[in-house]
Amino acid sequence: MRAAVYLEKNKPLAVQTVADPTPAPGQVVLAVKGAGICGSDLHMVQYGFAAPGQVLGHEFAGEIVALGAGAPSGLKVGDRVCMEPGIPDPNSKATQLGIYNLDPAVRFWATPPVHGVLRPTVVHPAAFTFKLPDNISFAEGAMVEPLAVGMHAANKARIRPGDIAVVSGAGPIGMVTALAALAGGCSQVIMTDVQQPKLDLAATLGPIKPVNVAKEKLTDVVNKLTDGWGADIVFECSGNEKAAAGVFEPLCPGGVVVYVGIPLEPIAYSISAAQIKEARVEHVFRYAHVYPRALALMGSGKIDVKPLITDKFGFKESVAAFDFAVKMPPSSVKAQIELS
Amino acid sequence: MRAAVYLEKNKPLAVQTVADPTPAPGQVVLAVKGAGICGSDLHMVQYGFAAPGQVLGHEFAGEIVALGAGAPSGLKVGDRVCMEPGIPDPNSKATQLGIYNLDPAVRFWATPPVHGVLRPTVVHPAAFTFKLPDNISFAEGAMVEPLAVGMHAANKARIRPGDIAVVSGAGPIGMVTALAALAGGCSQVIMTDVQQPKLDLAATLGPIKPVNVAKEKLTDVVNKLTDGWGADIVFECSGNEKAAAGVFEPLCPGGVVVYVGIPLEPIAYSISAAQIKEARVEHVFRYAHVYPRALALMGSGKIDVKPLITDKFGFKESVAAFDFAVKMPPSSVKAQIELS
Amino acid sequence: MRAAVYLEKNKPLAVQTVADPTPAPGQVVLAVKGAGICGSDLHMVQYGFAAPGQVLGHEFAGEIVALGAGAPSGLKVGDRVCMEPGIPDPNSKATQLGIYNLDPAVRFWATPPVHGVLRPTVVHPAAFTFKLPDNISFAEGAMVEPLAVGMHAANKARIRPGDIAVVSGAGPIGMVTALAALAGGCSQVIMTDVQQPKLDLAATLGPIKPVNVAKEKLTDVVNKLTDGWGADIVFECSGNEKAAAGVFEPLCPGGVVVYVGIPLEPIAYSISAAQIKEARVEHVFRYAHVYPRALALMGSGKIDVKPLITDKFGFKESVAAFDFAVKMPPSSVKAQIELS
Amino acid sequence: MRAAVYLEKNKPLAVQTVADPTPAPGQVVLAVKGAGICGSDLHMVQYGFAAPGQVLGHEFAGEIVALGAGAPSGLKVGDRVCMEPGIPDPNSKATQLGIYNLDPAVRFWATPPVHGVLRPTVVHPAAFTFKLPDNISFAEGAMVEPLAVGMHAANKARIRPGDIAVVSGAGPIGMVTALAALAGGCSQVIMTDVQQPKLDLAATLGPIKPVNVAKEKLTDVVNKLTDGWGADIVFECSGNEKAAAGVFEPLCPGGVVVYVGIPLEPIAYSISAAQIKEARVEHVFRYAHVYPRALALMGSGKIDVKPLITDKFGFKESVAAFDFAVKMPPSSVKAQIELS
Repeated sequence: MRAAVYLEKNKPLAVQTVADPTPAPGQVVLAVKGAGICGSDLHMVQYGFAAPGQVLGHEFAGEIVALGAGAPSGLKVGDRVCMEPGIPDPNSKATQLGIYNLDPAVRFWATPPVHGVLRPTVVHPAAFTFKLPDNISFAEGAMVEPLAVGMHAANKARIRPGDIAVVSGAGPIGMVTALAALAGGCSQVIMTDVQQPKLDLAATLGPIKPVNVAKEKLTDVVNKLTDGWGADIVFECSGNEKAAAGVFEPLCPGGVVVYVGIPLEPIAYSISAAQIKEARVEHVFRYAHVYPRALALMGSGKIDVKPLITDKFGFKESVAAFDFAVKMPPSSVKAQIELS
Repeated sequence: MRAAVYLEKNKPLAVQTVADPTPAPGQVVLAVKGAGICGSDLHMVQYGFAAPGQVLGHEFAGEIVALGAGAPSGLKVGDRVCMEPGIPDPNSKATQLGIYNLDPAVRFWATPPVHGVLRPTVVHPAAFTFKLPDNISFAEGAMVEPLAVGMHAANKARIRPGDIAVVSGAGPIGMVTALAALAGGCSQVIMTDVQQPKLDLAATLGPIKPVNVAKEKLTDVVNKLTDGWGADIVFECSGNEKAAAGVFEPLCPGGVVVYVGIPLEPIAYSISAAQIKEARVEHVFRYAHVYPRALALMGSGKIDVKPLITDKFGFKESVAAFDFAVKMPPSSVKAQIELS
Repeated sequence: MRAAVYLEKNKPLAVQTVADPTPAPGQVVLAVKGAGICGSDLHMVQYGFAAPGQVLGHEFAGEIVALGAGAPSGLKVGDRVCMEPGIPDPNSKATQLGIYNLDPAVRFWATPPVHGVLRPTVVHPAAFTFKLPDNISFAEGAMVEPLAVGMHAANKARIRPGDIAVVSGAGPIGMVTALAALAGGCSQVIMTDVQQPKLDLAATLGPIKPVNVAKEKLTDVVNKLTDGWGADIVFECSGNEKAAAGVFEPLCPGGVVVYVGIPLEPIAYSISAAQIKEARVEHVFRYAHVYPRALALMGSGKIDVKPLITDKFGFKESVAAFDFAVKMPPSSVKAQIELS
Repeated sequence: MRAAVYLEKNKPLAVQTVADPTPAPGQVVLAVKGAGICGSDLHMVQYGFAAPGQVLGHEFAGEIVALGAGAPSGLKVGDRVCMEPGIPDPNSKATQLGIYNLDPAVRFWATPPVHGVLRPTVVHPAAFTFKLPDNISFAEGAMVEPLAVGMHAANKARIRPGDIAVVSGAGPIGMVTALAALAGGCSQVIMTDVQQPKLDLAATLGPIKPVNVAKEKLTDVVNKLTDGWGADIVFECSGNEKAAAGVFEPLCPGGVVVYVGIPLEPIAYSISAAQIKEARVEHVFRYAHVYPRALALMGSGKIDVKPLITDKFGFKESVAAFDFAVKMPPSSVKAQIELS
């Protein structure tokens, strides 16, 4: 079959023929219907992390076309599903403890040597395949993967109903984290960025107050909204070293910081600033246990990811889609490729 | 001044003249604007818990008309506020630990010998007085007290985003618990009662699935919605002994029960049924720390209590209001008295 | 090989020839060196839960004599080990969540149709087999299984350093729970029973204050020790309905109850008594994740189970051992069978 | 009366006459019996944080000699006590939330303009005064203050029974943190320093494995002890920037870091190193709620601070005591001044 593959550093990807996958016991065969393009796919293209021929893509929804032997009850041919892309060793210590995302043996879609999903058919373990609610489209289903990062961040924060959160960085991950934080109990999100179009979009997604930190001081806004007490939670989603170092300033005593973005370099972390507020600092690595939860919130209307799907391309336009994604305008959040 | 007072068991209350209150240091003087009638007020009338002359009412919003000496900054004359009715000893061990609602020394509005708020003016500690957001009316402000019970229950549950909750009992407390659970991260609430009008109202408040347990089996509904796994949380708000004993049946492994309703008699509690699911069982007594959180969720639009205020009376109609509340029709949730 | 098997209700067990087990991939073969007799083994003999021929025993330590294909690194022939007797389905939802003990598919040693360990050789998954520290004997290793129940109870309590705990019931499970509670951070345990010899033994195990509730009132003792505040934790290990109903009386505001014992009938549970203290009530079903933790505490000298191994029998005395265990004197805690 | 006062930067302190304190309502008057010298006292002498005449000292035990009006029941003249030196505003938001140590209004002994305890008599709020168990001396009582820091760190870690902890830095705070961690449920502590005499002393305090990081690699020791999994908790007590940056290396997946020491400069903090293990990072600022817990553990014999009191001086030797403390030999941990 044909697949969207990586060929060479800094070069556009190509559509090539790849081998058909064969299902193992406990697996299902899926027809891919839609797939999102993630920053990590782009990094592969730009920085050359993979060998030529690597199939890209790990954000995905589709339809079950066959069941392997021993696949659990609850799934059947024709089910509309999305899938969790990281598969751990079921017998590892991390998996046994319920933190399977931290298992070093995890095999993750489109992370070499594992191929990705930008091809008509894939196989996947049934235990990591989740039915879409009837009112959720394939396009929305392919958004569950990035949303899962925000859901996991919201889980780690252990939000108490009515918390006020700062989300720093209005990229795709900041957006889904804001949605998850609001669905997860926050009364309000204060969102920061320096790109006004992103902030303008964010402000339409719910009780989100945009703060352009090129023009306004975050702590002023937070202090005004909280009578000087500070924000209960800061989700750092920008990956910017300076933003990541500044998280304790807008935080309330006893508050929580969740580091979601991944700065390339170590940051200048003030232990005494964190101590004076006894901050709890959490760190997220992908996600665990959140796919059914994200789908439940989407199905009941508490999370709507449709405004984040800003750009759609056909499978034959895959090369153009990646080209677009590399130069994404500030008003775009997520580009997806549709397969039929 | 004139106040709505309790006179005699099983008799309607009366409007009588009572002494004007005088503010102590750290207190504020408030003009009462609206007050809700609570089941506990009715119990006082029906069961005779109080001495004749007891002023009733503890659900309240109003306006600051004077500040006592040493009242903290942040409040000023003219502020629209609601107030938390239980005042602990600030030096008790429970208060120091942050569980001030469990302090045996708590003085609570309208709990003898403390008078209630159904009178034009009251004094209250500034530390337990909270500003209403601009978009929240006095009537909604007077709903914060019952809502606080639901908020506290949601807090105790430690909801994880996407949880599915059962709320058993669609009375006022069941209603506010459902609202708090949804605002606090639940994806869906399954609400039970035997009175269809209450369930019909509940179904309009959000992703709430009503189950008339006189006609339908709760576990069937839960199993269908959760593929047989069970509900993450059961909020028991009916106070019915049989319902309270049955909480473990619809619960998932590792799930949480929160006992909010107060059965009059001990219930038949199956430890082995709770053990096989390793249920965590929480109990709430009033609330603590939730007023600002409830107000934040109301202010940002995540909780709307207006549909619950089904019946309004003027202050001069106080006697009729109590009479109505005692025989409340099943389609009513909360009766309030407006003072001007 | 020869094994200790159940034959008939209310009859002593017998030693009979059973088939040799064969190792599957990921399993290890173990020479059984010592096994404890548990109340559940006795129940099988007394109440006839099993088919004739059932091999008994699930508390066990031994030596690895062979490794199946694909057994993980870290274990080798000659290793002295003990084993966790419940094996879940690694792909179940409960296992994925880290609560594998709640997986309905768990296969548990000596729970029909699974045979037990009272035989010279058994096979077991390597992932549930744990090395004994050098200073821990096989007899102590066979105590890890009952100790695991106490460890799990201590985990569920989420002990804060310095907590004062009540352990009601000084049977084997009460004893190991007291040891786990003390090792897990409690400053003191108050232990109740009506059998004075059990209490006398308990008092030698650490800072444990024995209370014979036939002679003394528990709440008096607790109030004296805690200046009237109450105990932070109550571990109910007696399984007695009356004791289980009375847990809230000695408890402090905000305290924790852990139901470890399993009353045969539902108890009379006072929700209002639990609410006034906002008790958190936890329930344990076997254990999860605690074997390595129990072994670490035993290895470092923080838990010493040797005083609990009160009676030892040879394998040929197995029938007499069970006979003894059924009529265990109050000064005995655990009878074990040694295999060589 | 006579008191040990600070006079001038880098100069020894002096003994001077100061005014007698007068008790306010709710306070007790205490005869000081013993006081420890803390690093923060020394900083005041060395760096000149205070005005001339400042009385030093905040680690203290003594005897009640008088009760102010309205002092709570439970304390009486003649009681042997120690006291928590930080007194919050009982009506502040932080205090109400139970995190009174984070209240910016805290008044702390020997923190200008509040005088310290190195004088014969002081007054203190009864609510922050705690009775010593009968078997605990005044000298041990004066150790509760530094021990409280370790207790609070152990609380923040939320130790699960059997955890293995690293304590980096074998100064006084590292020592008390190790004691609290072991009493609080850890099976073993691995303690690091570069001063061998400190490590040699630490090794006598319990199951503590000393690691001289000038000679040995911490991660090698941790990996060997944990089969490569990593330590459950790292308590960073050295305040050394390099040690504080390196905490994630020996940590297990899902592990906890508690920053206790206070580096002077921001550290180079690798968010990605913390993310790959999803570390939870906690920070402590003094302590809250732990005095009764520390005393309970000392009273029951689970914590013994006597080996840490390495050097004693009389009140008249106060000047020499401070001189000694500034140049403390590596084999010393805590110098105390006795008052009679």
